[in-house]
Amino acid sequence: MSKIRVTIWNEFVHENRDEPVKKIYPDGMHKTIAKMIGDKYDYTFATLDMPEHGLTADVLANTDVLTWWGHAAHAKVEDAIVDRVQQRVLEGMGLICLHAAHYSKIFKRMMGTGCGLRWREAKEKERLWVVEPHHPIAKGLPQHFELQEEEMYGERFDIPDPDKVVFISWFEGGEVFRSGVTYTRGQGKIFYFRPGHETHPTYFNKTVIQVIDNAIAWAKYEGATDVMKAAPHVPVSLEPIKPK
Amino acid sequence: MSKIRVTIWNEFVHENRDEPVKKIYPDGMHKTIAKMIGDKYDYTFATLDMPEHGLTADVLANTDVLTWWGHAAHAKVEDAIVDRVQQRVLEGMGLICLHAAHYSKIFKRMMGTGCGLRWREAKEKERLWVVEPHHPIAKGLPQHFELQEEEMYGERFDIPDPDKVVFISWFEGGEVFRSGVTYTRGQGKIFYFRPGHETHPTYFNKTVIQVIDNAIAWAKYEGATDVMKAAPHVPVSLEPIKPK
Amino acid sequence: MSKIRVTIWNEFVHENRDEPVKKIYPDGMHKTIAKMIGDKYDYTFATLDMPEHGLTADVLANTDVLTWWGHAAHAKVEDAIVDRVQQRVLEGMGLICLHAAHYSKIFKRMMGTGCGLRWREAKEKERLWVVEPHHPIAKGLPQHFELQEEEMYGERFDIPDPDKVVFISWFEGGEVFRSGVTYTRGQGKIFYFRPGHETHPTYFNKTVIQVIDNAIAWAKYEGATDVMKAAPHVPVSLEPIKPK
Amino acid sequence: MSKIRVTIWNEFVHENRDEPVKKIYPDGMHKTIAKMIGDKYDYTFATLDMPEHGLTADVLANTDVLTWWGHAAHAKVEDAIVDRVQQRVLEGMGLICLHAAHYSKIFKRMMGTGCGLRWREAKEKERLWVVEPHHPIAKGLPQHFELQEEEMYGERFDIPDPDKVVFISWFEGGEVFRSGVTYTRGQGKIFYFRPGHETHPTYFNKTVIQVIDNAIAWAKYEGATDVMKAAPHVPVSLEPIKPK
Repeated sequence: MSKIRVTIWNEFVHENRDEPVKKIYPDGMHKTIAKMIGDKYDYTFATLDMPEHGLTADVLANTDVLTWWGHAAHAKVEDAIVDRVQQRVLEGMGLICLHAAHYSKIFKRMMGTGCGLRWREAKEKERLWVVEPHHPIAKGLPQHFELQEEEMYGERFDIPDPDKVVFISWFEGGEVFRSGVTYTRGQGKIFYFRPGHETHPTYFNKTVIQVIDNAIAWAKYEGATDVMKAAPHVPVSLEPIKPK
Repeated sequence: MSKIRVTIWNEFVHENRDEPVKKIYPDGMHKTIAKMIGDKYDYTFATLDMPEHGLTADVLANTDVLTWWGHAAHAKVEDAIVDRVQQRVLEGMGLICLHAAHYSKIFKRMMGTGCGLRWREAKEKERLWVVEPHHPIAKGLPQHFELQEEEMYGERFDIPDPDKVVFISWFEGGEVFRSGVTYTRGQGKIFYFRPGHETHPTYFNKTVIQVIDNAIAWAKYEGATDVMKAAPHVPVSLEPIKPK
Repeated sequence: MSKIRVTIWNEFVHENRDEPVKKIYPDGMHKTIAKMIGDKYDYTFATLDMPEHGLTADVLANTDVLTWWGHAAHAKVEDAIVDRVQQRVLEGMGLICLHAAHYSKIFKRMMGTGCGLRWREAKEKERLWVVEPHHPIAKGLPQHFELQEEEMYGERFDIPDPDKVVFISWFEGGEVFRSGVTYTRGQGKIFYFRPGHETHPTYFNKTVIQVIDNAIAWAKYEGATDVMKAAPHVPVSLEPIKPK
Repeated sequence: MSKIRVTIWNEFVHENRDEPVKKIYPDGMHKTIAKMIGDKYDYTFATLDMPEHGLTADVLANTDVLTWWGHAAHAKVEDAIVDRVQQRVLEGMGLICLHAAHYSKIFKRMMGTGCGLRWREAKEKERLWVVEPHHPIAKGLPQHFELQEEEMYGERFDIPDPDKVVFISWFEGGEVFRSGVTYTRGQGKIFYFRPGHETHPTYFNKTVIQVIDNAIAWAKYEGATDVMKAAPHVPVSLEPIKPK
């Protein structure tokens, strides 16, 4: 069996611009995520500054799961690329949106909502509770796990009702958040996962990586079915229609 | 209590262009729908050819429920107007998408999916079954009701899982369709209702009108709450955060 | 318009047996809840020690919404009465299960799951976040509200996916909980609301009472429809069936 | 990898009592289903007349997926066995309820609703439409498939909202039905599949068998997690609780 083809998209702005972030992720978060998961998947890296943001039709056609991290430059992602990614998700490519990607064009496109939330950068403790311990994304996880310093995201999170709420976060400062939620859109599976602020070494955390790894396995492209990409005309009926 | 403010949007192309449609709806479907429901609501009419398609910021700010019918000219609806309508739905305005509006920009925007389906124009019988008889949209309806001649829409309908499937249609030619589905997006309620092909006098059918009437009452704007329109910064925490 | 008929069921064991609870609720929680809401509803009180637990066929037939509090004596509720309550819920009576009623026979019957959870009595702070600010049950509420001393209930809460998660609780001791969840079963609406441990004066809290009040208005019986109570035989078909 | 352990439960009344049914399924439907799927699974057969209906604690502990067919003798299934099956489902065993099992004690127990529906025995054509073509249960299926003669089941089907509606049936006589629906209860996956009336050779149909086969693979027990079987007391908090 060939490896799942994972394209890790990273805005890659903070790591180039902000010294503290560069220190944590000198090669960019995308490289760290791949390195931490290991070579079980076939990785492609794509960043904002590449032609077509690295997401050419060919790259997407050969991607089973796309992970997305963006924050400072959501607006710089071209609409035509967002259209292309959406189309590929609807055809069955998995999409994993990480942290500030809640506000990315692609996540908002797939959700149809504003995707706003409350936030605070205060180096506070986040504890993620596993609400659906039998879900494939929670495979092998403990009942809860902690990140000692993270940005806070709090409810109301303006998203459609998820298929499943896999994680709910408790924050030291007093908030809660649906921090792992799944969706189905067209043939594609979508997972939003909250942790990963650029100023903290979150993607070096093994449990965080295990969640992303599990999510990749869960969301992977399963092959084409006859779901309609367009609205097909079927002029001949299966049953006779009486003249009226 | 003041009346619910309903804006009935109609593309109004077929009625001006196609003789058989003009015969059925000489003043446009929008006028027929309002007339059939009666003066219990406070109506505004808006059509594609009006400035800003009749959906100015002021009109939307004074709309509790927007109904939408479009077919031949989806592409002519300006994206900026779609943005504006989406924003108002997220703030709580109800949205009722009728028939071919499954493929409208606004419905696709709210859904995030392709919204494709199978279709056939063969003057066939449609029977709508009430799947959720206790839903407000089904109030006063019989177990099932029929339209003697309609266009066929068939599954797979490429939509996200609805909150509720209120109606499922049986078609003479052999197909089935989830013909009444509800969603919540932001603070807004959305209802998609299948019947209403322009070449049939569907909006003169009293049961069809009762469904639209019920849906208006169900979807109406309920006033602003503190749902986040943007992502608010809350720098001060409710609980003390320990320095690390 | 006549008043909504609310039957407040209380196990009424702790208030008779445990001095600290008796001090808080000398007449029983049921009386406190009714008094706090006020005379806008038409109340009936029912307790475990009454014949048929106060839930005769006649009482249920005249109940629009039933609220349920039980803890120490779940097992003493007779199965035949649970059958009767379930049947009335399926016919459209609202059911509001409070606090320890998560483990009542009637809640488990309606859910089909074990309804287990983690718990701790440590007089800790609970903060309830409003996750669906536009839901009727959240009407008039602030973004969050607090109870200074409550029992802790923590996830994993073993329930089916709710229709809507209206509240999520943050606990001082580190847990989170889906503390306000809605369901539809048959024609009936169900709301589970977490707060209300017997050793704390929770039902004197005005926001808690507002939630229960909102939930009553939301869950009320809306009249009979033709939902099948049994499986009806329909020997004559609507369409002709060809001999084979 | 060892085989998935499938227990096929059959009431086995019609095949012993009714000549026409005996002719179609001389060894019982349970044997036919296993034979049609083939030896890819490790089968156990269990019937009503066996001690403990063949569902001893040991059999269930060694079952990954249980399929259930019952019709004439639902009431004869002992409640204690239903309790045991429910408990095992909540621990992760898959449950596939076939045809008239919509009215079985175990299905009604898991649903919490009445599970009624409309029905007619008229040897009519049923056409099942695949509504979720990307769902594992629909793997390899065409857009729709037909059974030339089946009993009719029609909406309103009194079930809770499914996780996914995989199939919707069209009936020759004019009805529709949600004929393939999935649920999660506790750690267990549940699938209800409509076809299979005893007087028709439905379980010899290869597409029907493929659906059951797909459903077994989808619903299989995935191993124990720490989901609470009971409500665990956690007296020590993760975070300090201030004395009040």
